[in-house]
Amino acid sequence: MNTHERPTLALALGDAAGIGSELAAKVLSQDDIRQAARFIVVGDRRQLDEGMQQAGVKLDVPDWSPAMSSDIALVDRGNIAASDIVAGRGDARSGGAARDNLVAALRICSGGAANAVCYTPLNKQTMRLADPDFVDEIGLIQSVLWTDAEGSEFNVLNELWNARVTSHMPLRDVAGTLSRDLIVSRIRLTDQTMRSVGKNKPRIAVAALNPHAGDGGNFGNEDDDVIAPAVAAAAAEDINVTGPIPADTVYLRAVNGEFDVVLSMYHDQGQIAMKLIGFDRGVTLIGGFPFWIATPAHGTAYDIAGMGMANPGATRNAVMLAARLSRDRVLADPERQREVIGAEMVGRARAS
Amino acid sequence: MNTHERPTLALALGDAAGIGSELAAKVLSQDDIRQAARFIVVGDRRQLDEGMQQAGVKLDVPDWSPAMSSDIALVDRGNIAASDIVAGRGDARSGGAARDNLVAALRICSGGAANAVCYTPLNKQTMRLADPDFVDEIGLIQSVLWTDAEGSEFNVLNELWNARVTSHMPLRDVAGTLSRDLIVSRIRLTDQTMRSVGKNKPRIAVAALNPHAGDGGNFGNEDDDVIAPAVAAAAAEDINVTGPIPADTVYLRAVNGEFDVVLSMYHDQGQIAMKLIGFDRGVTLIGGFPFWIATPAHGTAYDIAGMGMANPGATRNAVMLAARLSRDRVLADPERQREVIGAEMVGRARAS
Repeated sequence: MNTHERPTLALALGDAAGIGSELAAKVLSQDDIRQAARFIVVGDRRQLDEGMQQAGVKLDVPDWSPAMSSDIALVDRGNIAASDIVAGRGDARSGGAARDNLVAALRICSGGAANAVCYTPLNKQTMRLADPDFVDEIGLIQSVLWTDAEGSEFNVLNELWNARVTSHMPLRDVAGTLSRDLIVSRIRLTDQTMRSVGKNKPRIAVAALNPHAGDGGNFGNEDDDVIAPAVAAAAAEDINVTGPIPADTVYLRAVNGEFDVVLSMYHDQGQIAMKLIGFDRGVTLIGGFPFWIATPAHGTAYDIAGMGMANPGATRNAVMLAARLSRDRVLADPERQREVIGAEMVGRARAS
Repeated sequence: MNTHERPTLALALGDAAGIGSELAAKVLSQDDIRQAARFIVVGDRRQLDEGMQQAGVKLDVPDWSPAMSSDIALVDRGNIAASDIVAGRGDARSGGAARDNLVAALRICSGGAANAVCYTPLNKQTMRLADPDFVDEIGLIQSVLWTDAEGSEFNVLNELWNARVTSHMPLRDVAGTLSRDLIVSRIRLTDQTMRSVGKNKPRIAVAALNPHAGDGGNFGNEDDDVIAPAVAAAAAEDINVTGPIPADTVYLRAVNGEFDVVLSMYHDQGQIAMKLIGFDRGVTLIGGFPFWIATPAHGTAYDIAGMGMANPGATRNAVMLAARLSRDRVLADPERQREVIGAEMVGRARAS
């Protein structure tokens, strides 16, 4: 097998107190995963060792070096001490290390040294203990990539996708945030993203905002006045889009194969459905940036951290999806990798 | 078998253009249903005949008469002509007849001639064509029963229940409607209702309003400032209640057996989950009035109306639940039935 057919993924270790290191170790020990991609693991050597111990696997992961030629290497961030890793007890140190790993992986990828970023579960609250300005991953990505591109989260569960118009905001603010233009732009992004993974003319269902899609105006007007015109405008652009469909039936219809993707209006609308359909297997895919970013949809699972019982299914799916999406990307040449990752190593030396 | 052990259910036929008549005919033809209750069917004879034809069953349902002694009888409302019944095409006539059937069933039950009301699927929009003041079933029930009791809908799916704090209102208005007192009252009603069906100390989970339960205030304050204090207040009354729990995990935990009932903050929160878990089998149970009211959770299904393929599972469950809940009610004596139903017959004669 020609290893250069495989994309290179920067895999950032998540919160060290959660199941993220265990998941990384489990997934990296699987043959089909290693055949699908090369890996630059980003995290502390001690965290990776801890993960291997929890997972009950032993992997040979050399430190990345300018002369490296192995299929897997570690960019050792030196950001968390062994004594700071306490399974199930996330804090500012585990959150800060997870934040640093993700930032470094994003820089490595944006510099052209990897084709996509994956990361194992983070915890927003511990990250915020380390960085009060942190709100969510999208905001962090924007700041690292110096972009105001909005990006957009997709939830991917086997063949069913979910996209959202709004995400991390109070429910109180959702209705006022929706506009015809915003919804049209999200329909377009959804269409383009799915086409880029080889889904020609994806069948997009747009969820309604109000109960019974507003029931002819009795339970709110946004479905008739904002969402329906947006759907009509997108359909006029030759996008295969239908809606607004009452939220309590649209996922059922999608599960039954009627649609490829549901565009939800707010966070929980999609998340309630997607998590019920298959919590452990879901993948969060972040599009709208120069490269793909994928992570399991579930969290750090502090309650089972360190026990070796974490299910690696979603992490497997995230890695496989990122690898598939990045297959056709131009691979980084070794010179470029040396330059970009070398700069990260210098940054690390300065920071510690 | 002593027939007087069985409660009497007033079964109102739903929208004649939908699957409601077919469902009634199918369910009434089942032996275990007939063993569980006596039935006063409320609707037009021609609609019932249409339903039997669609269902492919033949039932002997005599007209109700003061001297009746059969286990099943029809209060023929004479409210829809054979030529007005067009499968799949609901209109003001089918909606008006459905409304009239439900009103008569409620009167029969509130007069003491039956122990509970069941109805097959209605369509809010056709009912509104016939009665512009109609908003939803709860409002109609309040007006017929001359009460301002709030009532409350429960969705029942096997052993899992769902209750709601708000229901048919614009999503925009939900956050502003929530208050500590309102939530406490709904927790109490949920607790009382489940105790009354024999569930001692039901385990109640309260869903959060905002994504990630507000994530410590980053995505809204209602979870910390309104819902959490309400849960604490109810717990102090020796109610087994937990929350707020993020909406995208609470149903998963409930499905896994951790809770008996989820109290959702708004309509779609619960409905997305409950319909995904088992759309066809769900029952909407209305509590908080002097008698129980039960109906299948699904709608009129105009797209399959008249084809004989409607799944009677939810209607079966609604009837069985109403029968179980009404087992211990005092049974109507024949004299009272004659009086109450006789009055309805007079009303009918006047109306037609």
